[in-house]
Amino acid sequence: MTELRVHNFSISLDGYGAGPGQGVDNPLGVGGEQLHEWLFPPDGERTAVDQAFRTAGERGIGATIMGRNMFGPIRGEWPDENWTGWWGEDPPFHHDVFVLTHHPREPVPMAGGTTFHFVTDGIEAALERARESAGDRDIRLGGGVATVQQYLRAGLLDELHVVVVPVLLGGGERLFDGLGDALDGWGCVEFTPSAAAAHVRLRRL
Amino acid sequence: MTELRVHNFSISLDGYGAGPGQGVDNPLGVGGEQLHEWLFPPDGERTAVDQAFRTAGERGIGATIMGRNMFGPIRGEWPDENWTGWWGEDPPFHHDVFVLTHHPREPVPMAGGTTFHFVTDGIEAALERARESAGDRDIRLGGGVATVQQYLRAGLLDELHVVVVPVLLGGGERLFDGLGDALDGWGCVEFTPSAAAAHVRLRRL
Repeated sequence: MTELRVHNFSISLDGYGAGPGQGVDNPLGVGGEQLHEWLFPPDGERTAVDQAFRTAGERGIGATIMGRNMFGPIRGEWPDENWTGWWGEDPPFHHDVFVLTHHPREPVPMAGGTTFHFVTDGIEAALERARESAGDRDIRLGGGVATVQQYLRAGLLDELHVVVVPVLLGGGERLFDGLGDALDGWGCVEFTPSAAAAHVRLRRL
Repeated sequence: MTELRVHNFSISLDGYGAGPGQGVDNPLGVGGEQLHEWLFPPDGERTAVDQAFRTAGERGIGATIMGRNMFGPIRGEWPDENWTGWWGEDPPFHHDVFVLTHHPREPVPMAGGTTFHFVTDGIEAALERARESAGDRDIRLGGGVATVQQYLRAGLLDELHVVVVPVLLGGGERLFDGLGDALDGWGCVEFTPSAAAAHVRLRRL
């Protein structure tokens, strides 16, 4: 069977996948943008190790699933059709993207082969549709923290690539929290640090 | 003023400084020994980076403070004078070591210049005595998690060197928990990964 994989999921040294006070003006919470500085260095270039992990996160992927907060800052009912994601007219996915939400909305086709689908009947339904769309390729699971936790607890995730970034956020959403025994039997299959962050690939051992 | 520093404090990827179920048979909790494999590799040798950090943790140190659980597995009143630490006749400190405890006990002089002192009047008293003993050298703060948290919350710590180890413990004592605003204004002053672990030095910025 094809796999469901999380790639390049950044957490702070104190364990947060997003800072405190997430909202429209702070999609990643206060200080949360620091979590992605290894991907988009404010000074200088992305390291070769980091670049390799970024690329690996796209290889062999045929569909994406994400939580609604990753798609956009809007909560509740969709007020109109205007919001089409953070990524502009030609999003970098180039395949079907399944957005978990409680609020139905028509699919949104974008340039470059990306179509956003809105799934209201739960994480398993989203996975089923993503798997069908991806064919013999794998499915990538985006964030945020709550979405990854849901799939972990349901035992549906095959790989979790975490990037530990040496910053302190002091609060926010913790990735490794409330998981019960969901990670029993999981362990590190690869540890590759760069000059900017520590990459850890986790799988069932 | 001389400094109070924590060195080589290992935490798991999921944030624990000791595994669940700590006790006489499992001083570091279930699975906790994995936290120290970067220091004592079961196969192969310690890396040069890890060795450098190990050495740096001893440089310029004139006294050590530690929690009682780091000194030994005995809880409650000291039943007798038999327990003299985990480190044998000639412990690797070679200076005064102040053990925080609620239960008084006479000092225990060991070979090589180490003397264990038992401090029953709190963390500030222990720091004062350690500072006096260390003279113009710094004081090293050992574990465990609760001891480090106490000094952090009291604003008495100057440096916290954390080592993120790519293992999952699934439970235990979390270092970055319940600290409130104790780390506000702190940040990473050095990030140096080895092939085995990621070293992060934290200080007030």
